[in-house]
Amino acid sequence: METWDAITSRRNVRQFASRQIPEEMLQQILEAGRRAPSSRNWQPWDFVVVTDREQLRELSKVWRGGAHVADSAATVALVVDDSDDQKVRERQQYDLGQASMGMMIAAADGGVGSGHSAVADQALARQVLGLPEGKRVALLIDLGYPADRPLKPIRNPGRRPFAEVVHRDRW
Amino acid sequence: METWDAITSRRNVRQFASRQIPEEMLQQILEAGRRAPSSRNWQPWDFVVVTDREQLRELSKVWRGGAHVADSAATVALVVDDSDDQKVRERQQYDLGQASMGMMIAAADGGVGSGHSAVADQALARQVLGLPEGKRVALLIDLGYPADRPLKPIRNPGRRPFAEVVHRDRW
Repeated sequence: METWDAITSRRNVRQFASRQIPEEMLQQILEAGRRAPSSRNWQPWDFVVVTDREQLRELSKVWRGGAHVADSAATVALVVDDSDDQKVRERQQYDLGQASMGMMIAAADGGVGSGHSAVADQALARQVLGLPEGKRVALLIDLGYPADRPLKPIRNPGRRPFAEVVHRDRW
Repeated sequence: METWDAITSRRNVRQFASRQIPEEMLQQILEAGRRAPSSRNWQPWDFVVVTDREQLRELSKVWRGGAHVADSAATVALVVDDSDDQKVRERQQYDLGQASMGMMIAAADGGVGSGHSAVADQALARQVLGLPEGKRVALLIDLGYPADRPLKPIRNPGRRPFAEVVHRDRW
């Protein structure tokens, strides 16, 4: 797919078809995340990709809004060091955002929808994923083919107008 | 360009050819940022895109490592509310990361290189860009055609091995 079509087709998907994501496609999505840039190339992330249905059901309980994780074809847990240093946390967040967007655009390229899911119960998330000490799950990215209609370029994405968001040379 | 080629061609560029970015391409890059997903679609960003050479020179002084901004074809200042609330700041950072990656992949699709530049002197950045009270520049994304060699898919991107980063079902 052309890059611009993938970028404009990406949308949040929360209802998934039962169809699995082919292994090669799933690896390409994760590879896009692995390749993301990060501050001084520190790559603060580990990705735990969950496809086992029972694991997905358990993982869906870490946030009350996370029910769709249970029905996803795969969910990627974004794992980082559990730091109290606010500067470190902000850097982690920015770089996780970059990795997430890379994965979501790669997913859209293959017709795979994606969404974000928060982690409220950190202890449960750690237990379900078997994380070592000192790690936390920053966010879950759920993946799957949309149940409603295939991804296709969106003309009006529901954002603030371009002329309001973009300023030229000065505010 | 195919999406996967754009994703794998993206690399940090800090030395730019003098060639300008066509207006249509620049707008497409910014549009990719505008379309990025964000927490509850709050779109916490404004983008100030600077192409005026004198403005770029001034902007390059906001960080000692930012000299390449002066030679960029365009630099996008990512502007957000200047909040003290750490949760808000972390959400801003994640969403700015998503918007940045969308812009950088859209840029790579057009052969345009990109890089990150920090903002150390916030007061100077605000003054150069004429920001209203209560706003800060979180980061600069510099853009331009590479001076060395055109972007092309990178086989080995210099990252931790896939098998180390990616875990299946459990850590």
